[in-house]
Amino acid sequence: MNVKHGFALFGAGRIGQIHARNLAAHADARLLHVVDVAADAAGQLAATCGARVSDTAAALADPAVHAILVASSTDTHAALIRAGAQAGKAIFCEKPLDLDIAGAQASLAVVAQAGVLLALGFNRRFDPAFRRLYREIAAGRAGKVEVISITSRDPTPPPPAYVARSGGLFRDMMIHDLDMARWLLAEEPATVFARGSALIDPAIGDAGDVDTAVVVLETASGRLCQITNSRRCAYGYDQRIEVFGAKGLLRADNVPATTVESAGAEGFTREPALPFFLERYAAAYRNELDEFLKALRGAPAQLASGEDGRRALLLANAAQESLDSGVPIRL
Amino acid sequence: MNVKHGFALFGAGRIGQIHARNLAAHADARLLHVVDVAADAAGQLAATCGARVSDTAAALADPAVHAILVASSTDTHAALIRAGAQAGKAIFCEKPLDLDIAGAQASLAVVAQAGVLLALGFNRRFDPAFRRLYREIAAGRAGKVEVISITSRDPTPPPPAYVARSGGLFRDMMIHDLDMARWLLAEEPATVFARGSALIDPAIGDAGDVDTAVVVLETASGRLCQITNSRRCAYGYDQRIEVFGAKGLLRADNVPATTVESAGAEGFTREPALPFFLERYAAAYRNELDEFLKALRGAPAQLASGEDGRRALLLANAAQESLDSGVPIRL
Amino acid sequence: MNVKHGFALFGAGRIGQIHARNLAAHADARLLHVVDVAADAAGQLAATCGARVSDTAAALADPAVHAILVASSTDTHAALIRAGAQAGKAIFCEKPLDLDIAGAQASLAVVAQAGVLLALGFNRRFDPAFRRLYREIAAGRAGKVEVISITSRDPTPPPPAYVARSGGLFRDMMIHDLDMARWLLAEEPATVFARGSALIDPAIGDAGDVDTAVVVLETASGRLCQITNSRRCAYGYDQRIEVFGAKGLLRADNVPATTVESAGAEGFTREPALPFFLERYAAAYRNELDEFLKALRGAPAQLASGEDGRRALLLANAAQESLDSGVPIRL
Amino acid sequence: MNVKHGFALFGAGRIGQIHARNLAAHADARLLHVVDVAADAAGQLAATCGARVSDTAAALADPAVHAILVASSTDTHAALIRAGAQAGKAIFCEKPLDLDIAGAQASLAVVAQAGVLLALGFNRRFDPAFRRLYREIAAGRAGKVEVISITSRDPTPPPPAYVARSGGLFRDMMIHDLDMARWLLAEEPATVFARGSALIDPAIGDAGDVDTAVVVLETASGRLCQITNSRRCAYGYDQRIEVFGAKGLLRADNVPATTVESAGAEGFTREPALPFFLERYAAAYRNELDEFLKALRGAPAQLASGEDGRRALLLANAAQESLDSGVPIRL
Repeated sequence: MNVKHGFALFGAGRIGQIHARNLAAHADARLLHVVDVAADAAGQLAATCGARVSDTAAALADPAVHAILVASSTDTHAALIRAGAQAGKAIFCEKPLDLDIAGAQASLAVVAQAGVLLALGFNRRFDPAFRRLYREIAAGRAGKVEVISITSRDPTPPPPAYVARSGGLFRDMMIHDLDMARWLLAEEPATVFARGSALIDPAIGDAGDVDTAVVVLETASGRLCQITNSRRCAYGYDQRIEVFGAKGLLRADNVPATTVESAGAEGFTREPALPFFLERYAAAYRNELDEFLKALRGAPAQLASGEDGRRALLLANAAQESLDSGVPIRL
Repeated sequence: MNVKHGFALFGAGRIGQIHARNLAAHADARLLHVVDVAADAAGQLAATCGARVSDTAAALADPAVHAILVASSTDTHAALIRAGAQAGKAIFCEKPLDLDIAGAQASLAVVAQAGVLLALGFNRRFDPAFRRLYREIAAGRAGKVEVISITSRDPTPPPPAYVARSGGLFRDMMIHDLDMARWLLAEEPATVFARGSALIDPAIGDAGDVDTAVVVLETASGRLCQITNSRRCAYGYDQRIEVFGAKGLLRADNVPATTVESAGAEGFTREPALPFFLERYAAAYRNELDEFLKALRGAPAQLASGEDGRRALLLANAAQESLDSGVPIRL
Repeated sequence: MNVKHGFALFGAGRIGQIHARNLAAHADARLLHVVDVAADAAGQLAATCGARVSDTAAALADPAVHAILVASSTDTHAALIRAGAQAGKAIFCEKPLDLDIAGAQASLAVVAQAGVLLALGFNRRFDPAFRRLYREIAAGRAGKVEVISITSRDPTPPPPAYVARSGGLFRDMMIHDLDMARWLLAEEPATVFARGSALIDPAIGDAGDVDTAVVVLETASGRLCQITNSRRCAYGYDQRIEVFGAKGLLRADNVPATTVESAGAEGFTREPALPFFLERYAAAYRNELDEFLKALRGAPAQLASGEDGRRALLLANAAQESLDSGVPIRL
Repeated sequence: MNVKHGFALFGAGRIGQIHARNLAAHADARLLHVVDVAADAAGQLAATCGARVSDTAAALADPAVHAILVASSTDTHAALIRAGAQAGKAIFCEKPLDLDIAGAQASLAVVAQAGVLLALGFNRRFDPAFRRLYREIAAGRAGKVEVISITSRDPTPPPPAYVARSGGLFRDMMIHDLDMARWLLAEEPATVFARGSALIDPAIGDAGDVDTAVVVLETASGRLCQITNSRRCAYGYDQRIEVFGAKGLLRADNVPATTVESAGAEGFTREPALPFFLERYAAAYRNELDEFLKALRGAPAQLASGEDGRRALLLANAAQESLDSGVPIRL
């Protein structure tokens, strides 16, 4: 019979709510504690999931808690990872590990010392379409990979207050795409070049950030990757990847709500892309939790590791540095 | 606070298992009893869903059972509907209501007498794409509807033993499409013409049935509907509808597992259609249960009624009669 | 060195103009005479193509004329075919051969007697997409063909005066689809069933014709074909064929002017189908002329024969008879 | 009545043959002379087009020649442009103007001095799909343009001997995409960054060139453009453009030979992209000749100018310099 693994959830916002629902519905998991500085949000979420509201200390002290799920704001990630590791808990942490590479490395050292499992929430690796891309690449369907093109656009720009705390587009948004690039290239990028502009929302420019960016990665063996990000997109959450290789192309397109198409004098109209990550990556969030629970059971699991988190942060930092300096950055 | 409605499930086969899982996961439902002549299947399903194995009498006698879900073989539907109605239970019954129209009418009379809710499991009405077709038609997006074309193909032919008990392609398979036609035309067909052949599996022909069929429906106002069915399809479960009207076309295409596409010298290849109804109509089965539970709560719900079941059976019978006689049948 | 085959063109209307331009541009053809009761139209077309305006007798008497191209109104076809044959000219005639089957047979007898080439202008056989369908079927790509579905919709209804002279939807419009069915099924239909309505233009109904129709064909071996026709279509000239067989599906979709797609909040919009036959079948008209000129040179050529014209007319007549009588017609 | 403009064609290779056929078929043009160092090629082409073989001096001395069409090898462009201009001929020259910017500028000075028309053969501007993109951008359909993504891949790598003379991927191949970027951005790029590798054919690397490249352009106002080129593509000639803006996306996809699709267990397969430029840009070559002939008649015409040729060359040179130096180049 299955043991249900006990979880404490940190963060009762949008992503915390997804994880709470997925934990509540999972046969192998029990959500025990919800921790959030916003007591109302914590209380409401705990109630709907049969969990209780706790503070960090209480949640970490509970021996029934096997794992913590960190979905709180970025600036709390490092402290929670370290505290969780020291309490001997397995850790699932939303990206990014940290905004600061030294801090990230220190956290990983604590995790290594404690010998606990740490998985990063690079949810896109668990999207059924991108997983299939990965498997097809591995199976050689595209031949040797030469160029990867990643398009990633959010539906609407974040509020200025969020931008200020976000670490900037590269660490906050493109970090997902940088992780996809590493994962699909199966080789580390050796140089990063970034260009970016504030074309969408002047407030983003005023905050010192960009809302539109293009990045070029090159690996040691000369493989190339293009990434483009925009903070606003009229036709939904634009999430596409193309992998070009010696034998052809593999690509994953956007996902519509349904396959319904209408036709009239203006032409044939299919539905826009799903609105945002909650919809597009619903299956991905379930799949990543499945994999994490496999790992808790000691079974082989495909997870993004703490080191994956550190590497993606290095790339994001290099992209920011390239944008600031105007030249490519060698890693 | 929500009351959880208690259910007894009849039939632990493929469709019974879908409903059991959906009942188990639903916040407003509790699966209490599983009834099946195959004790093993019943036991296994009951165990995974926290229900108990019962016989019909015990299940219907349990006052905690508010509703029965009939997913057992077609020849048991009539008796279970009548017994459930007489026990005062709400009834959700898989199609068809009956293979015999007199029997169907007698069942409806018992249900009417008992004043209980009866919903038919025309699952396609709850598919997100077909629901959207329905709403768009109602909103006038295609203008006045003139011609509907329904393509419906199973991936592999059923075993001969199943064919013998099935009532034939029209009552067993096309009945779904006939219901879709009625639902989307929003007008009753007045004539039915059918042609069919056993082109796929000679055993189906030997059993007196067809595996390939084409039907034409015409309504009193002259609107037309084409339906084609095949009992085998190389590219998955082919489920498509096109609605042609004065303002243009609305159509729902097949659903692939993912949007991944590969390209090589042979061209651009998208994934085949989802394999069969379990995958294609997973959301539809959840949605129809949602609607049934709404109705149990007394909320407005969109359900296929017993009368819808009777009308679809009339059309299926007429199609069979047309096939047998070679001439169109007027209803 | 190539001999240029001399042509006389009968009919300076829309289709005559296409043929005139294709003849003028063809390395192996010379357009010598244009004959039309409308002297202006004939004069204008002759001028742009370097031909002269003639009457029928003069055109047929010219020994430099090797072939006649009959693109005049349907009621003139029989007389021109017979006169052309008796003058020893090869004949390319637009569909239909005749509106009357006895007349058609008499014309074919004259042609046979004269021993001249007669080709019917079933232009769709020469469309690159439909030709590829044909070749792929022949190559077994779909396996044994079981069901063919043909969708054919004109952009706008013809004027009432045209309808009155047209012979009705089946002989005027669906005859093309009936020919496609014969060609792609590679087996003669044995029964024809038709339903139709005047849903689009009441004037068409007043003229005793239908503007919306569905036909079912069945061959002796039980293969089925569905055809639907509409006389008005909001999204262009809808010309699609699906061929379903043991190994899968082959289909030819509509052709847009370009591949441009736009995306916004309403979704992803591709261009409508090309407006009408002039655009959609531009290549087909060139290809059929090529084949006719091959035949004139004595080379193997793929042409629709007079017999193909007669067979298609038989099917169209049967469809009309089925519509009128309400029952399927056995051929 | 139309005056037919007399042409001398320089170069009887693949592109020269396209232009020869288009000139021969055009109502407003007469091809008088074909000039090529390969006498056989010149003779054969001249024969099929009713022209005569000439040398440069004779062709330019012929007062019946109003325009020259330069489709000979790149190293001859400058001399022919200058000689043509000095002879008072209008000039249509294939890209690139020159491999050397000083040479290009000197040629433009001669043309300006002579006051003759010079048009560059940036054929993609005349492709129906890209023209529609251009018009839709101008009409504001995508809103303010923010990011353009251009994918351009040749089917097979050129022979090493060609690579050596070609000026390199940026001047030989990407120059088309750089022109498209300028044309669609409607603003000059201010910086160019390039990365490239020889991943496809080691002989290309040995020749000091790359076969796979990615370029980022940024305009003064911060708009971005990504371009990727590959010298080999398994699925045909990959020619796609995406324009992302405030109101959504406009894109032009590849063009298949037909719309035929087949489906089987492996999924739904559409045709590959047309094989190469002869097929993909057949209409573009006709359209650009039309525009050039309009200009010869003094009518308003949309042409790529000598200055467009110079600007594209500047961008290609900057891309090469960026590749060589590893840093972005400011223009």
